[in-house]
Amino acid sequence: MAEKITPRAKDYSEWYLNIVKEAGLAENSDVRGCMVIKPHGYAIWEKMQRALDRMFKDTGHVNAYFPLLIPKSFLAKEEEMAEGFAKECAVVTHYRLKAVAGKGLVVDPEAQLDEPLVIRPTSETIIWNTYRNWVQSYRDLPLLINQWCNVVRWEMRTRLFLRTSEFLWQEGHTAHATQKEAEDEALLILMDCYRKFAEEWMAMPVLTGPKSEGQKFPGAVYTLCIEAMMQDKKALQAGTSHFLGQNFAKAFDVKFQDANGKLEHAWATSWGVSTRLVGGLIMTHSDDNGLVLPPRLAPTHVVIVPLGKNDAEQKTSLAAAEKVAAELRALPRDDFFGYEPLVVKIDTLFDKGPGFRFAEHELHGVPVRIELGPKDLAKDSCVVGRRDVPGKEGKQIGVPLAGVAQHVDRLLREIQQNLFERARKFRDANSFEVNSYDEFKQKIEEPGGFLWAHWDGTRATEDRIAAETKATIRCIPFNRTKEAGKCMVTGQPSEGRVVFARAY
Amino acid sequence: MAEKITPRAKDYSEWYLNIVKEAGLAENSDVRGCMVIKPHGYAIWEKMQRALDRMFKDTGHVNAYFPLLIPKSFLAKEEEMAEGFAKECAVVTHYRLKAVAGKGLVVDPEAQLDEPLVIRPTSETIIWNTYRNWVQSYRDLPLLINQWCNVVRWEMRTRLFLRTSEFLWQEGHTAHATQKEAEDEALLILMDCYRKFAEEWMAMPVLTGPKSEGQKFPGAVYTLCIEAMMQDKKALQAGTSHFLGQNFAKAFDVKFQDANGKLEHAWATSWGVSTRLVGGLIMTHSDDNGLVLPPRLAPTHVVIVPLGKNDAEQKTSLAAAEKVAAELRALPRDDFFGYEPLVVKIDTLFDKGPGFRFAEHELHGVPVRIELGPKDLAKDSCVVGRRDVPGKEGKQIGVPLAGVAQHVDRLLREIQQNLFERARKFRDANSFEVNSYDEFKQKIEEPGGFLWAHWDGTRATEDRIAAETKATIRCIPFNRTKEAGKCMVTGQPSEGRVVFARAY
Repeated sequence: MAEKITPRAKDYSEWYLNIVKEAGLAENSDVRGCMVIKPHGYAIWEKMQRALDRMFKDTGHVNAYFPLLIPKSFLAKEEEMAEGFAKECAVVTHYRLKAVAGKGLVVDPEAQLDEPLVIRPTSETIIWNTYRNWVQSYRDLPLLINQWCNVVRWEMRTRLFLRTSEFLWQEGHTAHATQKEAEDEALLILMDCYRKFAEEWMAMPVLTGPKSEGQKFPGAVYTLCIEAMMQDKKALQAGTSHFLGQNFAKAFDVKFQDANGKLEHAWATSWGVSTRLVGGLIMTHSDDNGLVLPPRLAPTHVVIVPLGKNDAEQKTSLAAAEKVAAELRALPRDDFFGYEPLVVKIDTLFDKGPGFRFAEHELHGVPVRIELGPKDLAKDSCVVGRRDVPGKEGKQIGVPLAGVAQHVDRLLREIQQNLFERARKFRDANSFEVNSYDEFKQKIEEPGGFLWAHWDGTRATEDRIAAETKATIRCIPFNRTKEAGKCMVTGQPSEGRVVFARAY
Repeated sequence: MAEKITPRAKDYSEWYLNIVKEAGLAENSDVRGCMVIKPHGYAIWEKMQRALDRMFKDTGHVNAYFPLLIPKSFLAKEEEMAEGFAKECAVVTHYRLKAVAGKGLVVDPEAQLDEPLVIRPTSETIIWNTYRNWVQSYRDLPLLINQWCNVVRWEMRTRLFLRTSEFLWQEGHTAHATQKEAEDEALLILMDCYRKFAEEWMAMPVLTGPKSEGQKFPGAVYTLCIEAMMQDKKALQAGTSHFLGQNFAKAFDVKFQDANGKLEHAWATSWGVSTRLVGGLIMTHSDDNGLVLPPRLAPTHVVIVPLGKNDAEQKTSLAAAEKVAAELRALPRDDFFGYEPLVVKIDTLFDKGPGFRFAEHELHGVPVRIELGPKDLAKDSCVVGRRDVPGKEGKQIGVPLAGVAQHVDRLLREIQQNLFERARKFRDANSFEVNSYDEFKQKIEEPGGFLWAHWDGTRATEDRIAAETKATIRCIPFNRTKEAGKCMVTGQPSEGRVVFARAY
């Protein structure tokens, strides 16, 4: 199968699209900018949803659902948001089609809406308009609400999963009685949900910290982010958590009586991750043989490939496969796999060659493969292949069948850890401290990566760097060293380095 | 709390809206016809989704996601569907707003789409347009795909959950190599998923069978349905499964090569249930005290109410509550509760009276309440109240604390069964065989209910009855007796009774 995949070194962008196609993850639809998420891609998204949803609930959040359609006037109420999203809104203007002889179905001009509706690009406005009726007293706070839904942002240049006009996401919208509580919430979501999910489930190391002014969300006081490095050394913004101050409470008149009877505007956060994460997952781990998935997010954990040249051999190896599968499925459920049983498939395509069968499972990213051939079975053993180390190097020969389920269970956990460590090493090896703008301009071209540099903190400098180098400030990392320095562009003082990169 | 609820006998429709509001399930939004599903209502929908999704997967289906927006021309390709849905489509005509001085945000006339897009009212067209590229050979079949999503059908008269312009649902779309396989699929979904879910999870008995021609889905060859009776004796169509023949394969040119190399059009089914089920759940079980939920779909299974008049008493009862809660949460996970641990809440509102606290939990439909008062605790016992039998009648006094978790576990299963039996008895008690049209016209007014009557099988008669009585054929039950008879209206021959009712 690997000949269908352009090597990363040859054309990274083409490689990505090949993986998405050949592993059956998604495809472009006939509707401009909208993708079809195919069953294998959707299964990954479902695993992501399940894990994230549990984290949100464990931190006290509940789900709800707000309307898809937002009156134009709502969007207009928060100025920055209106400016940020108006230019990419899908607008519903009519509520009926009608058949006209000779023309077929046409938009019925008599069914024009009094006020156009936009398809939500994000739901702060409709939700804060609703919260107005939910919040009277401090006793009604906090509201800790999330929704899983689709949103539409009309994009001119799209790329499967990474940037599409319609995408799926979750958006949390919380309301609080105090500024501190809201800021704590924004941080909690970033560190205890998003960072944790990215690192422990996706095996994708992330930087955490605020965005610069130039990169923040329209309507936010500030935006916190998790930022990851892809294998082409470009950055991917993987999740954002916004402290919104009282902007939306003021725009939608959401006031509550505090414990002293005083009327106050509520404090807000919002936060989201989307199907973009599937793109990030692919680009973090996959290789020239196909998709590589961390076991905690793999729709299929183990594939068993019974082998045999004749009916008798095939019957024997198939029976052994069924026995091993049953043992794997019966392993105790635990938190590591989200309290779900291991998903094990048996490949019965005996009429295809072993090489073809193995390659097929590598392409689809199944973390562990168990090969059951007549010679191994004669010795009560099997061959175990790990997807994170493809080919012969990752093959464990002569693994005893007795206890193979426990062996594979341990191996899956090891693979999860290995993928994370490998990605972390890659990122660190491609992160550089840069001390002059000349060096910066050179390094951003070659070798690329995350460039840690001093910056004077102004929007003007940030914009100039972006215009001249296509690199943006990805994050002002929480864990940066406090280090007095001078802006590489203006020489003005800086209190620490920020991280620049070219980004998706 | 019960004074907030209009009794069913006084005004059933008002009672329903009171329950939806007071139990915090949903509310109307400022967007015409679109509802906000509040956290408690959404939690019920999540439980429904979880159970249904497992059933779909256990019967071999996978999830995927197709675009929200459908080109107008796609809708036009299947004639019946175009006719059925065109008049209620939300239409996107533009992809941008712009700010105009003095006018604020306006629809940008320069950003008009070449072809209008409709928000999916159902997705057969976009999905079959996609399947064209997925199906070449009989080896590509069957496709057994489901999606969970939102749809929009512009409704003029709406009612929370039961009929809203936007609603959430699942829609299955399958493609098969033979007619028989597709028909088997439509039946499998109806009987092994929808009927089973309605009866075993919602505790809502349903009739199963095809719809008449006048009630079938636009574009279907025939429609199978599950049909339930609400407490006002009206019918609720709770789920439908359609055999679509080759209609969509022909409209979208989906052909495959069969085992003999011959090109054939694929055979199709589609099937869906929606957030309407939440409305059906409410109307099947709830009472004048509030919401009643079958335990398998209750977001909270047990509430523990520690009681005490002073700090010492409250401390003791709270400690006992925590112990009981821990025992309940530690009960082994099983299929009955979807392999999830029991959800147990402790009510610590000591400053409210016990009556208020009990009423609050009745209003919200928690299936079992455990009261822990000082006198009971002194005897190592507690009081257990069951929501399906409200007030004193449902109270079990002196239940020993030792083993209370197992006792409650059994009780939850008993409540589930009791709710189903009660609803079945209610439906059967309100179902009548009717033998003349005069009797029919009288009975449909008073007492109402399901009227089993002979009908000549024609659309004309069906339409006449609907026009004259507002009763429609709900279902041609699979389990009806084959009984020669004469149509109550025309006297023409009939081979068995069909079920008429007024419906939501």
